[in-house]
Amino acid sequence: MHDKRMQEALQLAAIPGGLTAPNPMVGAVLVKNGKVIGAGYHPKCGEKHAEVIAIENASVPIEGATLYCNLEPCCHNTPAKKTPPCTKRIIQEKIKRVVISTIDPNPLVNGKGVEILQNAGIEVVTGVLAREAAFLNEIYFKFIQTQIPFVHLKIAQTLDGRIATQQFDSRWITDETAREHVHRMRHKYSAVLVGLNTVITDNPKLTARLGLETQPYRIVLDEKLEIPIDSNILKDEFANRTILFTTPNYDNGIKEQLTQKGIRVNVVNGNGTGMVNLRDTLQMLGEMGITSILVEGGSKIFTHFIKESLFDKISVFIAPIIIGKGIEAIGDLKIEKISNALRLQQMEFKKINHQLLVEGYRDLSATFGNLSGAI
Amino acid sequence: MHDKRMQEALQLAAIPGGLTAPNPMVGAVLVKNGKVIGAGYHPKCGEKHAEVIAIENASVPIEGATLYCNLEPCCHNTPAKKTPPCTKRIIQEKIKRVVISTIDPNPLVNGKGVEILQNAGIEVVTGVLAREAAFLNEIYFKFIQTQIPFVHLKIAQTLDGRIATQQFDSRWITDETAREHVHRMRHKYSAVLVGLNTVITDNPKLTARLGLETQPYRIVLDEKLEIPIDSNILKDEFANRTILFTTPNYDNGIKEQLTQKGIRVNVVNGNGTGMVNLRDTLQMLGEMGITSILVEGGSKIFTHFIKESLFDKISVFIAPIIIGKGIEAIGDLKIEKISNALRLQQMEFKKINHQLLVEGYRDLSATFGNLSGAI
Repeated sequence: MHDKRMQEALQLAAIPGGLTAPNPMVGAVLVKNGKVIGAGYHPKCGEKHAEVIAIENASVPIEGATLYCNLEPCCHNTPAKKTPPCTKRIIQEKIKRVVISTIDPNPLVNGKGVEILQNAGIEVVTGVLAREAAFLNEIYFKFIQTQIPFVHLKIAQTLDGRIATQQFDSRWITDETAREHVHRMRHKYSAVLVGLNTVITDNPKLTARLGLETQPYRIVLDEKLEIPIDSNILKDEFANRTILFTTPNYDNGIKEQLTQKGIRVNVVNGNGTGMVNLRDTLQMLGEMGITSILVEGGSKIFTHFIKESLFDKISVFIAPIIIGKGIEAIGDLKIEKISNALRLQQMEFKKINHQLLVEGYRDLSATFGNLSGAI
Repeated sequence: MHDKRMQEALQLAAIPGGLTAPNPMVGAVLVKNGKVIGAGYHPKCGEKHAEVIAIENASVPIEGATLYCNLEPCCHNTPAKKTPPCTKRIIQEKIKRVVISTIDPNPLVNGKGVEILQNAGIEVVTGVLAREAAFLNEIYFKFIQTQIPFVHLKIAQTLDGRIATQQFDSRWITDETAREHVHRMRHKYSAVLVGLNTVITDNPKLTARLGLETQPYRIVLDEKLEIPIDSNILKDEFANRTILFTTPNYDNGIKEQLTQKGIRVNVVNGNGTGMVNLRDTLQMLGEMGITSILVEGGSKIFTHFIKESLFDKISVFIAPIIIGKGIEAIGDLKIEKISNALRLQQMEFKKINHQLLVEGYRDLSATFGNLSGAI
């Protein structure tokens, strides 16, 4: 019975997608005498929490009701927080029982919400559809526990593992249906990241073209600031959402030009092989409030993230085509033995038209931290 | 109603797998007054045809019955043929109606069976589950129309398209479940083919280890006869089923040694780049009565078959692992534009434990000839 109601809460939670960031996606369902009497979801950071919306739109008096929500209700009230604690409201409303999927690993909550409710005599049930709830909020759970953005590599390749021909032609390996899927993915992420080569070769827009108003930040790793000044992402209407990361070797003249255009340029340490130090880059992005990044290439960038073990999830679109020698999706990782291969966890397959989407995680415990036991 | 009975006939047909080669797999179901009164399948080349077995094991008099069989009944009686024509028997037994999936493109039949039955006043229905029937007998349909074996490339690769590390380690990219699947595949083929490098690097047995008595032929493309004389496939109990193909550049001393051991060595023309002429090789294999070949690698061999457009089907096992730079599954095909990529037809996906099996055809019309309209 709990599962069915929680499923409803999870479906509500998922509606706003990336709009809730940096907050988690939360849905709430209020049940009394076996009937749903109120429901809601947190629509956007800064707006009301799901629990409060469910309470406020309840059709009958809610005393004695059961509240289902996929995350432990919040109990804190720090200066930065935009809404009052939900636990207080739940107690005021005399809710009898609260059913949740997982605790909130946010150090300010992390079980304290449950404790406060229990101390007020409310029955608390935890662990209902915990696995589903954990995957739904993978971005939130990673960021809240590490302050490092959730990094998702997205590769579009041929069946033989190429992302372009030797002549750098890559349009289009995947079909429109798959590319639309990518636009939907972009909407869930705070930022999209590519390397300089991708900007030079493809001159992409890196926008989420679904007719919605918000756009992800566009991050380019450009070690010497060699980006062509007339690149699309430097001159379109979202240019103020383009962020470059460079190393101390950058070209100062260009930096000034870029800054004048309103483009942010961040200087981070090099990694000794001429590339940016990725850990520093991700930490800086985390400090800027970017909780999630979709990495879209190219080969050098994918290889860098994989080599440094600095990604959480990988999605590989595989097209039903073969091109033979070309630009490889992933370069040298210095793996000599198959037994030392990077083995993806929780690998899933999905058919998208004539393509295949393969998804997996690098290390569930690194991504989900305290919650990895629930998976 | 026809579909259900034909489905039963197809299931029976598939039982013997590769044992019927060079004959097709055929199943037959006899139905009278809505009840199955007899059924059978062609168990092995040289033994009775499915139609006759169904007739002979019928439980009641069969006059007026309907016969379901996935292939047009045979009507010819050449000296090489081991069994009498089925059309004659069907007419003798006063069967009222014959339902088939496809005609038999064998030039000796090719609609004549249907004609003979119709001329005898028997109702003939064709095209029932024609698609399923075509795929079931893909090997037969290719060979009977071209005298060239059905060529099936089998690749086991990492998610990033590698078949081994740079140090040539490939054990094991796929798990036991996938490897067992390969053993079952081998049983459906007259021969397994590899290149010299695979013999040197892996020293494989290339047997179908499922406890059955028959084994596929083992073919090695070895342009200069450099195969190590103590290779498993030259000294095990099936050594007389190993066939080498070499070019006129071969080492004569080795050839004598091999011939003395009972190993067959065939000399074919080179292709100008030091490799055997594949078309000549396949033609010679066809003349030897080999109707199907499972090509198991390595990279050079896969590339050769793809470049020459001399394969029918490809099966790629994709493991949930990434190794980065390594031995690529498929080498240079001189494809410069994605629009010129080899686009697989009829691509299908299957999950095998944690792996994925992707299968497709190069060109359905080349494989199925006259029957490709049914697909």
